[in-house]
Amino acid sequence: MTGPVRGFEITEFQRRTASLQQAMADENLDALLVTTAPDIYYVTGFLTRFWESPTRPWFVVLPADAAPTAVVPSIGAALMATTWIKDIRTWHAPDPEDDGVALLAGALRELTPRRGRIGVPMGPETQLRMPLADFERLKSAIAPREIADATQPIRHVREVKSRAEIEKIRTTCQVAGVAFERVATFAGTGRPLEAVFRDFQIACLRAGADWVSYLAGGAGPGGYADVISPASTRPLAEGDVLMLDTGAVREGYFCDFDRNFAIGRADDPARRAYATLYAATEAAIDAARSGATAADLHGAMAAVIAGDGSSVGTGRLGHGLGLQLTEWPSVIAADRTLLREGMVLTLEPGLEMAPGRIMVHEENIVVGAAGAELLSPRAPADLPVLE
Amino acid sequence: MTGPVRGFEITEFQRRTASLQQAMADENLDALLVTTAPDIYYVTGFLTRFWESPTRPWFVVLPADAAPTAVVPSIGAALMATTWIKDIRTWHAPDPEDDGVALLAGALRELTPRRGRIGVPMGPETQLRMPLADFERLKSAIAPREIADATQPIRHVREVKSRAEIEKIRTTCQVAGVAFERVATFAGTGRPLEAVFRDFQIACLRAGADWVSYLAGGAGPGGYADVISPASTRPLAEGDVLMLDTGAVREGYFCDFDRNFAIGRADDPARRAYATLYAATEAAIDAARSGATAADLHGAMAAVIAGDGSSVGTGRLGHGLGLQLTEWPSVIAADRTLLREGMVLTLEPGLEMAPGRIMVHEENIVVGAAGAELLSPRAPADLPVLE
Repeated sequence: MTGPVRGFEITEFQRRTASLQQAMADENLDALLVTTAPDIYYVTGFLTRFWESPTRPWFVVLPADAAPTAVVPSIGAALMATTWIKDIRTWHAPDPEDDGVALLAGALRELTPRRGRIGVPMGPETQLRMPLADFERLKSAIAPREIADATQPIRHVREVKSRAEIEKIRTTCQVAGVAFERVATFAGTGRPLEAVFRDFQIACLRAGADWVSYLAGGAGPGGYADVISPASTRPLAEGDVLMLDTGAVREGYFCDFDRNFAIGRADDPARRAYATLYAATEAAIDAARSGATAADLHGAMAAVIAGDGSSVGTGRLGHGLGLQLTEWPSVIAADRTLLREGMVLTLEPGLEMAPGRIMVHEENIVVGAAGAELLSPRAPADLPVLE
Repeated sequence: MTGPVRGFEITEFQRRTASLQQAMADENLDALLVTTAPDIYYVTGFLTRFWESPTRPWFVVLPADAAPTAVVPSIGAALMATTWIKDIRTWHAPDPEDDGVALLAGALRELTPRRGRIGVPMGPETQLRMPLADFERLKSAIAPREIADATQPIRHVREVKSRAEIEKIRTTCQVAGVAFERVATFAGTGRPLEAVFRDFQIACLRAGADWVSYLAGGAGPGGYADVISPASTRPLAEGDVLMLDTGAVREGYFCDFDRNFAIGRADDPARRAYATLYAATEAAIDAARSGATAADLHGAMAAVIAGDGSSVGTGRLGHGLGLQLTEWPSVIAADRTLLREGMVLTLEPGLEMAPGRIMVHEENIVVGAAGAELLSPRAPADLPVLE
């Protein structure tokens, strides 16, 4: 797959930072400090797998009314210079004496007023990607400036995807869709689940994934036990239900959807559960319009599942998707987040068919004014059988 | 590849926790709180790709004189129950009201004295994998207990790998070695680097990698510009030097080594640089015995590189390896960490051949009493040429 043109126009990053700066103004923030791969990629376009190394911290500062400043290890200077960022400050990391703290503190002092408020994501689903002890040093070095929670502005802006971002996610979904079409060629009775996982990742790469950051799944008689275990060496057996759930990545954008397959034969309970989950997903696709809430989607799916006499369970039934495998909001009864046009979500209804035997569906959608558009190719309406 | 038996004996985890408890005692810690994938896998054996989802925090508490307690989202209960951990406490995450903080605080209050000190990794190369705001709430909820930095005890114990761990890393290195042997079948003049990256990942999976968490590299005339950029679509050209550097994973253990290839022909400067880096690696293999320091390895490699009239540059020339692509210590002049038998390290000498044209070698070793043992298959002594 050669695929669509890579990268974003600079206007995309200018729009993102302007939106962030507006959201920052609402919270009286004089700068935003981000430290994680998705946040830094979002603001700068800096994309690398080097994040896998936890050794070095990376920082980007977005002032209230200027372009972002990157404060990064010198090993990343050349790559950062290929982005739209002009102000790039580097140090030789790792430095046991001072791993960028003085350089970052200097940038923050220069870019914010003395009594300024600097936003750092501290809320749900966020992490600080720097050593805690260095963060404490940083706070002292920038005093009397204050650190404030910036989860809300970042979440508010990142939750709604641009047209360009939606096309990236659509492309990744198509890549995984091609891989799912290949499953019948390598999964079937007698094949160990471990080998199926390996072949599915190969199929994703062949179809155009840059890398495969996530693959989960399960297989068992009439259903599977859980959806986060690594693949076992157990061979698939007739009567099994096999599920594969992938977070393939292209250009830093994830898909996150799954497919279920019956091995050898589809028993009635599995076919009924599949039909119920298919119908629950349809109900949520219809309900996913701007103005509804994440909780409404949960309600739409839960109603279908309960209407079939099944138990919904306590897990969430979907979530945001984009630069991370999972993002805000959560499709749970307690999340009243208003859906906005351009939000990309997974719909992930599941049910328990018997004690310890579950089935989970998942599709990816983008919220529109009049209902959702599917980004993943829709699963077949009936549980497919692999010979 | 079916490969060696998976998993560890329970005695392995008992030994690890006993070692941690001894190191904790040296720092007067009444418990250790860990939150990251490698730390939790190290203590419990809990292995999953679900860490890719940043939504949910996960906690393991190791008391001073008892087995670990897991405080985890209910979605992980079944998998955690397959490990040696008996005390598993769960909540339904994500919970916007309280995402495990009260449950964790209760466990810490129960497992530590009222004036206790709870260790959390806060130093170099560590991160806290939970929202900062929740960490602040936790500190209040467990007062007057104190949080103290636990980087040193964790680092001290994790740096030295057991025989079982060394075999895991050796297996992963062998997997990548098989993939490197395949490079000639898919890399050569006219092949885009992007396609080479894709095929190399496929080769790693085929050779037995569970997944490929890291692949970097570069290609350019006579050398490459940097080692962290994603693959470009530029076709390889005669006279290029191609480098591939992989962090494949099997059973949660990484390899991290690279290979260089000349495309079409090997020019003299590239062959000379390759020979210098090969010799530098040999010098470090000889020097890597218990009692030497990380800085000694840097010195051994830097001497060879400088002796050839080349510039060493400012980056590190290797690092620890195991559950992470990069671990402590750093092979830099400033790191005086004493090498101990069983430490697994990468040796990664590099040099600049011309402005913006570099070459980097990398091998993986385990430190022994009388010198190092290679875990990666040794690179060829002369720069290989791909037609």
